[in-house]
Amino acid sequence: MDAQEQGFFTEADSAEVVIGRMQKCTDPRLKEVMAVIIRHLHAAVKEIEPTREEWMEAIMFLTETGHMCDDWRQEFILLSDTLGISMLVDAINSRRPTGASENTVLGPFHVDGVPELEMGTNICLDGKGEPMLVHGRILDVEGNPLEGVSVDVWQANDEGFYDVQQKGIQPDFNLRGKFTTSANGRYWFKAVKPKFYPIPDDGPVGKLLYKLERHPFRPAHFHYIIAKDGFDPLTTHIFDPDDPYINSDAVFGVKESLMAKFVPVEDPAKQAENGFDGLYYDVEHDFVLAPKGA
Amino acid sequence: MDAQEQGFFTEADSAEVVIGRMQKCTDPRLKEVMAVIIRHLHAAVKEIEPTREEWMEAIMFLTETGHMCDDWRQEFILLSDTLGISMLVDAINSRRPTGASENTVLGPFHVDGVPELEMGTNICLDGKGEPMLVHGRILDVEGNPLEGVSVDVWQANDEGFYDVQQKGIQPDFNLRGKFTTSANGRYWFKAVKPKFYPIPDDGPVGKLLYKLERHPFRPAHFHYIIAKDGFDPLTTHIFDPDDPYINSDAVFGVKESLMAKFVPVEDPAKQAENGFDGLYYDVEHDFVLAPKGA
Repeated sequence: MDAQEQGFFTEADSAEVVIGRMQKCTDPRLKEVMAVIIRHLHAAVKEIEPTREEWMEAIMFLTETGHMCDDWRQEFILLSDTLGISMLVDAINSRRPTGASENTVLGPFHVDGVPELEMGTNICLDGKGEPMLVHGRILDVEGNPLEGVSVDVWQANDEGFYDVQQKGIQPDFNLRGKFTTSANGRYWFKAVKPKFYPIPDDGPVGKLLYKLERHPFRPAHFHYIIAKDGFDPLTTHIFDPDDPYINSDAVFGVKESLMAKFVPVEDPAKQAENGFDGLYYDVEHDFVLAPKGA
Repeated sequence: MDAQEQGFFTEADSAEVVIGRMQKCTDPRLKEVMAVIIRHLHAAVKEIEPTREEWMEAIMFLTETGHMCDDWRQEFILLSDTLGISMLVDAINSRRPTGASENTVLGPFHVDGVPELEMGTNICLDGKGEPMLVHGRILDVEGNPLEGVSVDVWQANDEGFYDVQQKGIQPDFNLRGKFTTSANGRYWFKAVKPKFYPIPDDGPVGKLLYKLERHPFRPAHFHYIIAKDGFDPLTTHIFDPDDPYINSDAVFGVKESLMAKFVPVEDPAKQAENGFDGLYYDVEHDFVLAPKGA
């Protein structure tokens, strides 16, 4: 028996020795997942060659990240977000045929039980911010309009806060709504121009971002969950391409296909036609749903 | 500008996009370390292709591991230990010339301020367990005996507990001592036969071990820190090769060179000569110190 058969540790065979120890595991998926994790962890440590002090810094970073987590704050998800892992997991789980709209991260601010609204309703309940008209069509990959599609939308206000972050300041369900398309596949509603906002940056993840000379901001966006039976549900955003952080979303949520031009409308006739009494921003974006399991 | 220059996320370029975001970081070591971590994290996720539920399980595992950590318990170190990472970091930081004794992990039970004892002292203060005589030489790599070497030893008792785990049950400084070699380089002391013991297994790391069909036990051992000015300090164990867990140390601390035969001595003359009145175990092990920086 050589050292590896006996399970003795050597620097050269470190990953194989550890993987060899779980051969009796009866959960094949766990075994596979752990083998990949162990192989990459050991390879990373061998590349980094951390000092004992650096290893301890990593232990303390993870510990502080864990201690920051409670019922309201999930610092490990922030870590996953800021290292692009959340977006990668989202991408792996939402591969779609060409032409279908792309997914992006859900984020922590989705709320269930949002009011079902008539098309055209203004989801801004407190009248604050620059008005917008948001509209477009929901189509299948052949370009046919889809009827009976649920369009669940939510957004931050013009100061970068969601209603749930400002309870008592913003009305409940401010800047949220659920719409259902009719036969023409069209959706339209009134809203306000969203603003960029920071992810929580007062914990270990924020400190790491600043050490890396990164900022914590997400460019302005609208969130959507667009769903209809028989189609792959679409969780996505549309982004303002003129946002100062459009090229550096702290959580890597921006994809090229998710840009939607926010056009200022200065023509009084058009303003009046759409029920505005001054400047508003118009954003038109079509969403394309892929058939389930495509 | 293509998507990557703009920093937009794509599944294929995910790691490069994230690494590209920290180009302004002015700490070259942090930048290098994070690039390795990001590259291996993304590669692991691409190999694993986790479902969203599996990703959330990983988030919750890390969160629970963090929540288990307090002033007395370091669950992330246990995780590092049980995945062989602590041993790998130790190995990377203690590469030595051929012939020098090998390092192993320090463990959490070392105590400062241990009494300095005369050679031959019995470190067992409560008379419990099977007696042992532990002896050998401290040499340099040319085989010369080393004088003035500090030999700091500690061990678990015959039930597998260190004094600090049984305050009020074991006397303070039970099974601990610090010895200094004279010109012949010899060390010898009396002790008790140590027993295997489990690492703490009531947290997320223990649960993971059981899911992997691994056990939490460490084979019986003596701990040493052996130090002399001008030499690389040696932090190591010697192990009982007849221990039931010798081939499966939960923290991978066993190396072939750290085996030291625990020999039962049944000859009454030899027992009397060494100050025992019955069966004892004899373990002889030489330690070889490497010159500093070799």
